[in-house]
Amino acid sequence: MVVVMQVGANESQIESVIAALNDHGFDVHRSSGSERTVLGAVGVHPEFDPRHIELLDGVSDVHRVSEPYKFASRAWKSEPTEAKVGDVIIGGNELVVMAGPCSVESEEQIHSSAAAVAKAGATILRGGSFKPRSSPYAFQGLGENGLIMMREAADAHGLKVVTEMMEPAQADVIGQYADMIQIGARNMQNYPLLRVAGQTGLPVLLKRGLSATIKEWLMSAEYILAENNPNVVLCERGIRTFEPYTRNTLDLSAVPVIKSRSHLPIIVDPSHGTGLRNKVMPMARAGVAAGADGLMIEVHPDPDVALSDGPQSLFFDQFDELMSQVRDIAKAVGRTMPSRTD
Amino acid sequence: MVVVMQVGANESQIESVIAALNDHGFDVHRSSGSERTVLGAVGVHPEFDPRHIELLDGVSDVHRVSEPYKFASRAWKSEPTEAKVGDVIIGGNELVVMAGPCSVESEEQIHSSAAAVAKAGATILRGGSFKPRSSPYAFQGLGENGLIMMREAADAHGLKVVTEMMEPAQADVIGQYADMIQIGARNMQNYPLLRVAGQTGLPVLLKRGLSATIKEWLMSAEYILAENNPNVVLCERGIRTFEPYTRNTLDLSAVPVIKSRSHLPIIVDPSHGTGLRNKVMPMARAGVAAGADGLMIEVHPDPDVALSDGPQSLFFDQFDELMSQVRDIAKAVGRTMPSRTD
Amino acid sequence: MVVVMQVGANESQIESVIAALNDHGFDVHRSSGSERTVLGAVGVHPEFDPRHIELLDGVSDVHRVSEPYKFASRAWKSEPTEAKVGDVIIGGNELVVMAGPCSVESEEQIHSSAAAVAKAGATILRGGSFKPRSSPYAFQGLGENGLIMMREAADAHGLKVVTEMMEPAQADVIGQYADMIQIGARNMQNYPLLRVAGQTGLPVLLKRGLSATIKEWLMSAEYILAENNPNVVLCERGIRTFEPYTRNTLDLSAVPVIKSRSHLPIIVDPSHGTGLRNKVMPMARAGVAAGADGLMIEVHPDPDVALSDGPQSLFFDQFDELMSQVRDIAKAVGRTMPSRTD
Amino acid sequence: MVVVMQVGANESQIESVIAALNDHGFDVHRSSGSERTVLGAVGVHPEFDPRHIELLDGVSDVHRVSEPYKFASRAWKSEPTEAKVGDVIIGGNELVVMAGPCSVESEEQIHSSAAAVAKAGATILRGGSFKPRSSPYAFQGLGENGLIMMREAADAHGLKVVTEMMEPAQADVIGQYADMIQIGARNMQNYPLLRVAGQTGLPVLLKRGLSATIKEWLMSAEYILAENNPNVVLCERGIRTFEPYTRNTLDLSAVPVIKSRSHLPIIVDPSHGTGLRNKVMPMARAGVAAGADGLMIEVHPDPDVALSDGPQSLFFDQFDELMSQVRDIAKAVGRTMPSRTD
Repeated sequence: MVVVMQVGANESQIESVIAALNDHGFDVHRSSGSERTVLGAVGVHPEFDPRHIELLDGVSDVHRVSEPYKFASRAWKSEPTEAKVGDVIIGGNELVVMAGPCSVESEEQIHSSAAAVAKAGATILRGGSFKPRSSPYAFQGLGENGLIMMREAADAHGLKVVTEMMEPAQADVIGQYADMIQIGARNMQNYPLLRVAGQTGLPVLLKRGLSATIKEWLMSAEYILAENNPNVVLCERGIRTFEPYTRNTLDLSAVPVIKSRSHLPIIVDPSHGTGLRNKVMPMARAGVAAGADGLMIEVHPDPDVALSDGPQSLFFDQFDELMSQVRDIAKAVGRTMPSRTD
Repeated sequence: MVVVMQVGANESQIESVIAALNDHGFDVHRSSGSERTVLGAVGVHPEFDPRHIELLDGVSDVHRVSEPYKFASRAWKSEPTEAKVGDVIIGGNELVVMAGPCSVESEEQIHSSAAAVAKAGATILRGGSFKPRSSPYAFQGLGENGLIMMREAADAHGLKVVTEMMEPAQADVIGQYADMIQIGARNMQNYPLLRVAGQTGLPVLLKRGLSATIKEWLMSAEYILAENNPNVVLCERGIRTFEPYTRNTLDLSAVPVIKSRSHLPIIVDPSHGTGLRNKVMPMARAGVAAGADGLMIEVHPDPDVALSDGPQSLFFDQFDELMSQVRDIAKAVGRTMPSRTD
Repeated sequence: MVVVMQVGANESQIESVIAALNDHGFDVHRSSGSERTVLGAVGVHPEFDPRHIELLDGVSDVHRVSEPYKFASRAWKSEPTEAKVGDVIIGGNELVVMAGPCSVESEEQIHSSAAAVAKAGATILRGGSFKPRSSPYAFQGLGENGLIMMREAADAHGLKVVTEMMEPAQADVIGQYADMIQIGARNMQNYPLLRVAGQTGLPVLLKRGLSATIKEWLMSAEYILAENNPNVVLCERGIRTFEPYTRNTLDLSAVPVIKSRSHLPIIVDPSHGTGLRNKVMPMARAGVAAGADGLMIEVHPDPDVALSDGPQSLFFDQFDELMSQVRDIAKAVGRTMPSRTD
Repeated sequence: MVVVMQVGANESQIESVIAALNDHGFDVHRSSGSERTVLGAVGVHPEFDPRHIELLDGVSDVHRVSEPYKFASRAWKSEPTEAKVGDVIIGGNELVVMAGPCSVESEEQIHSSAAAVAKAGATILRGGSFKPRSSPYAFQGLGENGLIMMREAADAHGLKVVTEMMEPAQADVIGQYADMIQIGARNMQNYPLLRVAGQTGLPVLLKRGLSATIKEWLMSAEYILAENNPNVVLCERGIRTFEPYTRNTLDLSAVPVIKSRSHLPIIVDPSHGTGLRNKVMPMARAGVAAGADGLMIEVHPDPDVALSDGPQSLFFDQFDELMSQVRDIAKAVGRTMPSRTD
């Protein structure tokens, strides 16, 4: 921690700050320049709240030196993590595409979706059975029945299953059917949920909160990693800004930032990131060009009658076209993609 | 819902949109101006996703006409709600102050806090026993023991108790000790938690999420109200913006906006809203001047050793001074405050 | 400047960073903790771009130690500045209210406005004659004719005049008629304009840009102060956030922040800050309660026909009522207000 | 314009609103649903301020129907504009890269930069001679001398010149040496400057303001287009958000949005958009993958000693590598690039 004293801070103020730092267990290095004094506080106190010092007389600013996350940092693990979802590896050279409907709605819907996305080269089936809806009156998902349908559809087409967990009580039932647990953007700082997700031992897809800084996102990953669960995959899905022409602002610069700060894999979700079908393709291409390890894409056999998020879901033939475009981009950046299965 | 066609949209596009609206069950009124056509879609479909229409050929923009919340709106209930926390009424002419430490840390700490805040005129004791911390390694609260201590301290000084619930499984134990349940900012869209809070029948203090629009905040209130629990109190506690000199940006204009859009009471939390003790007093005064129904303030017998949020906690004598300032402001805006009890 | 090395940075990386800092003219103090090394770089280089060091191998983060502004800082001048607009003093114990129409539209309009605001206790007449409009097709102001009308109206009622300058070429004509130059939010970083404003020697009202941090705002003040013009008054008028229910988010916490970082006076403009008449009163009260040195308020004899910003302009009787409310709040925070003049 | 009445608005309120709309010259279509009444106001009043109606009793919300911009819209011109900078065409199938140093610093610097970028396939030389700096004490550019150097360097290597204009008084001197005028982000709403830029007849590169919505950006383009200057090119360069790990958040979704709302070409500036050299390459690739018509890239012969923005400038060999990567991405999205010239 670095404490910058005000220009003109007097000796007694400086000594009080040093004493306070010592009281909190820090060793202090003092540098007095011609204009002001700077104190370096050394010692490992990841939980110390720097505002304690910021409030003392004569202090101008306090800067944290260490990142508050540990297991999520590159400093802890310099090799990129390859998260394993069964035999699907996320974070290797091969890009991974997770695709499927926003919500599981019926056997027919999820089976046809699974067939379509598997054929085009996706390896993980996405679909929600417990849905976080901003309105209490909206469709809330099919619950366990939806999970059963999704498992069968995935198995029939050689896919893995990722689905969202909304509360700790759902861990058991989801663990029975899914290969990967998704934590949604609204729950990124739902700490009891993060702990339980970590404890399941299943790989976890952690979406970035709407207004979460990258540091906070990595802190939430830390909650899962701290349960000895190393298989965490981050998912950028758009942040909230002042721009109304898009639903969210997909922050693709998060991809290179995560790559330099953390060893965790990161994928991009342009469906939620833009909110409109005709923006999904360019932003999916851009995500791969920026270096993402994969994509999460919403598709639906008939988006116009989807019970949720139809307008951002692709038609099957659009998904097919998207996969072909993404394959070209992947090649241009030196990555591979699973081949089509038809 | 209003559908604005593009300038130059042709007749066949317009008819397709009308047909789609009819398919979705809307009655359509068509207005063709010299420049473009506007379609009014009438019918009650609060859950309809307007993006279905936004994507059709020839459509420029779609505007929702009705608010997605119902019970939270002024249209539903024009009289201001007076929420009852025991015999304390929030939303009447008398301002209500909730005060206490960020976390319950010990019997002595919570008892001295209760004594100090009661003396100065607060009527509800705040304190966390289950703490949402961004780091998994930080102090997580005393759990049920903390609740017991808080209940005793409150009873000893004639105060009510408000405390945060972090997951549905805590509802029973919190219900045993608290008079009001707090939903924290990070959980504003934790829908299972909102439902359970509503079902307890206890009054609920709903903090605004860091990046929640006022509309989303009212939608979350709707989750509680939809459980037949009318005692919802909103709490503005700062939103996330680009400004780094304050921890959050306290959005006081939310106070008059809520007053015009909703019948629910609203209080202001300048402690989290600013994050630094020396900003709490001016912003508490400003909150009352803007028309808030009360305040939530963090105090601590010895903020320098507080286990959480010490730097934004007031010393007892500062709280005393604040209450005296707020009393003057309250008077200036025609509101009353409970008297001091010493 | 403080340079935080990565955990695991090796000796050769550390030495390269030290060498680079020396090359840039810094003295370096090295602190090697058990976990990582921190380098304090001492020396006055206000213009050094810390990203030069941020990019070196082994560097984790770089923190600036000194504020980039000098004359605007409390460190430079600890006494609060009292800006003089003729005999009106801004930043003393007496609050100053600037009021008038958004645009000068006619002699009658500006005279009746001047009469009304003077009567209620305002001491400075506001009004635009060169208008920055987001549309090239909107009313652009009356130019010099408007300035003449405003001057006459102000003189007839004992008021000073503040008006906006949009480009350097307007300095002469505005200097002929106005007592104070306003720099609008959109021009906060129009540096040639700031320089010219400073060179006029007239007091300058500097509005905060829509997305300006407080640091950037003070840097823009520095441009004016650096021209030996000490009479700078800051004006908070709302920042851009994600919230659509208000036009801008009035950031009242800027008031205490400015008071601690700078010696410059600060006033609040709730008219632009909220954009709607019925939000102006509560936010004006809140601004004074937060410690502002004054207010800027838009009024109009007939807001429904105003050529610009009518919806956020108060009727004369509303302004009268507002002044009476503000007078009560001022008293509660120990400030005075000029008396009514009728 | 669409006026949504409150649920429960009474007949007299509805009639008053209709009367007010008629007074303002609108024709009104009334739709009364079971729950509420919606009024469609037809008539071309692009400058009408909808807040006039929003404030009337019984009104819930008012939505604008028409975009406030005209010449910038797809509705006005459905064919994509190909802007001409001499014989360089921006907005055709071939991507255009503008590259060069942040500031012109010396003959040697600008000549070597011109040589390097021309060789790699750039066709326009960028460089600032009048610099907008947030500090009054920072390097402000070489003025006309810099323009002369840049012109010579460009001519020597077959490049066009783009450079920033900061105030109307610079139009003549810039017009003498440059092929394209850049309006910087901080001046996006400097309307006198936009008008003058339009009047020069030179093509204009209009950067998006830090907190400008896409609608406001197009309104600023309208100022230039309204001067009968059709050669406007938009440049996305990052918006301001809450994320501190990047300097700005590059909003690549602006690319497909602009493509659907406007006919104007759009390029991407990942140098300012990210602020750090190692983020420039992935985001440049992403910009092209998203569909941009070109890139603006900062390069410098020796970034470590650059007088401005060195840390976001590429070394020559990095630029070379970037061009090769971008060429691959361009091919993947069906676009061409000028060949290398060595």
